[in-house]
Amino acid sequence: MLVPLQWEEDKPCLRVLDQRLLPGENRWLVCENSRQVADAIHVMAVRGAPAIGIAAAWGVVLALHEVAGREDWSAALQERLSQLAGARPTAVNLHWAITATQRQIAGCETAAAALAVAGRLAAHIQAADLAANQRIGELGAALLPERARVLTHCNTGALATGGHGTALGVVRTAWSSGRLQSVMATETRPWLQGLRLTSWELAEDGIPVTLIVDSAAAAMMQAGEVDAVIIGADRITRRGDVANKIGSYALALAARAHKIPFYVAAPASTVDVSLESGEDIEIEDREAGEIWRAAGLEHGIAGVRTRNPAFDVTPASLVTAIITENGVSWPASGEGMELLAEPARP
Amino acid sequence: MLVPLQWEEDKPCLRVLDQRLLPGENRWLVCENSRQVADAIHVMAVRGAPAIGIAAAWGVVLALHEVAGREDWSAALQERLSQLAGARPTAVNLHWAITATQRQIAGCETAAAALAVAGRLAAHIQAADLAANQRIGELGAALLPERARVLTHCNTGALATGGHGTALGVVRTAWSSGRLQSVMATETRPWLQGLRLTSWELAEDGIPVTLIVDSAAAAMMQAGEVDAVIIGADRITRRGDVANKIGSYALALAARAHKIPFYVAAPASTVDVSLESGEDIEIEDREAGEIWRAAGLEHGIAGVRTRNPAFDVTPASLVTAIITENGVSWPASGEGMELLAEPARP
Repeated sequence: MLVPLQWEEDKPCLRVLDQRLLPGENRWLVCENSRQVADAIHVMAVRGAPAIGIAAAWGVVLALHEVAGREDWSAALQERLSQLAGARPTAVNLHWAITATQRQIAGCETAAAALAVAGRLAAHIQAADLAANQRIGELGAALLPERARVLTHCNTGALATGGHGTALGVVRTAWSSGRLQSVMATETRPWLQGLRLTSWELAEDGIPVTLIVDSAAAAMMQAGEVDAVIIGADRITRRGDVANKIGSYALALAARAHKIPFYVAAPASTVDVSLESGEDIEIEDREAGEIWRAAGLEHGIAGVRTRNPAFDVTPASLVTAIITENGVSWPASGEGMELLAEPARP
Repeated sequence: MLVPLQWEEDKPCLRVLDQRLLPGENRWLVCENSRQVADAIHVMAVRGAPAIGIAAAWGVVLALHEVAGREDWSAALQERLSQLAGARPTAVNLHWAITATQRQIAGCETAAAALAVAGRLAAHIQAADLAANQRIGELGAALLPERARVLTHCNTGALATGGHGTALGVVRTAWSSGRLQSVMATETRPWLQGLRLTSWELAEDGIPVTLIVDSAAAAMMQAGEVDAVIIGADRITRRGDVANKIGSYALALAARAHKIPFYVAAPASTVDVSLESGEDIEIEDREAGEIWRAAGLEHGIAGVRTRNPAFDVTPASLVTAIITENGVSWPASGEGMELLAEPARP
């Protein structure tokens, strides 16, 4: 099984599969201190919300190792955690993992005691993520028809999580239980996560995968070559609106036009019941170079503006079902997400 | 006005703006014989169906100059025209231009007489294309609302035609008559014609243009930033199904979902009344490298297949109006294309 984050207790260190070099090269970064973990997150050697959370939890453990011998270990730890938190300021899971660890070690009188607690928590976060993905996989695979041909977008696989994946977790479980015929992966402009990561992950696992440009998905549905669409989610609102990688909404519209089910697979932590509707979600406009670089035009064309939204919002009415480790909800039928949301996080 | 094909009678030669180097470099190829024209077409220095037809017509003129002094000028001409026709075997306009010239010079007894006829015909084909585009521009611009924000796909501009463009001809006319606010151009994977050519053409003309990735178009419509979609066409069937660059169908679905008019602008020669429905059109699957090269992966990833359809078919029911130089038809309302089609070609 592909596990992109591997803790080695003996050294101690966190080994991180550098996703920037995939699929050309399998290089593992060895992080021996919390600064190296922060760097790996900052440069996006590790990406994907769950994976970032897991890496951060191990980063706290490394920070505790660094300060363990010091009188002022608590203050020295705080300095390192601030640095870690700054690695990607908007990553929700990064801050959640750090805050959760801080809360659990608050009562510890020694660094050694804190280290033991933090180590158990990091291992738990990683194991719980994998277990959640395996549960999502089971629940999602049961929704697919026999010999399903599934279309997916972006990368929601082992590389983005503690292993197995969310939408790709459904794909993996369906494949191992014989329900899956093949996967169609969109390349996912502008970052090409589908081209570089998803198609590579699936080929590594021997799952039949066909790559297409994003705009060909509707034509593939029209040709009758897609039985279901499965994507992940960055955020899900109370009524089931789904914020996810740009292009997800266009896929949902095409799926609806062809009466193809549109599934979303994501951890319960993605559900934010404080948000009523997708209109409440602010959409990040990313730098123009992400688009221009595909043509080798680092600085673009004079006089041409760009819009580069990182994600879009698919309204609940187009979402057949949302699968979390807590169960399945049916937003298109008017079913909200309240029952599947996680208890409030710290 | 940008005219990518310029005939110089004095030399004689055809000057061709090399589109492979745009937008980085404005380099003109000077074609002094028919072989150089064939090469320019073959390597796609000139692309776009109307532009290829015009270049071919001038290629015949150059071939006649080459053979003018020879006894066996007719046989020598034939040899050159076969080579020209082989430059892009599937380009309909290439063959049409050559055949039309052959037909017109069939009665000429001398090369000099044939040269005069072929020269007049080439000039006529180029002028007629420009005039048709200007008429398409007028008819199309009249359909747009005041201060229209238009979304377009691929390149249908001066670069693909004898000047002005088809869908971009509508944009240009609307801009010069004050009806246009701005253009949103899709990058158009895998070849990036929108990024490299359309955004460059519009910026050169001072028309406000914003570039997006293809999959962001639906989100832009959802955000209320698009008043109309205008695309070109490779082929149009009798009932108004439209074959055009891959991604056009996805745009039509998104436009329909947001009640945005979806217009197609194309020369009447694109209408093929012998085709009843879009299902009769065979779709070319192009080489995988076009997709992989965006990530610098010339040879792809082992075990990953690709599907790379060059175009898709938008059913007439999603096409608000089709604009040709002969008038406007309304396929979504059940109006066919019979009245707008050109008389049968040779």
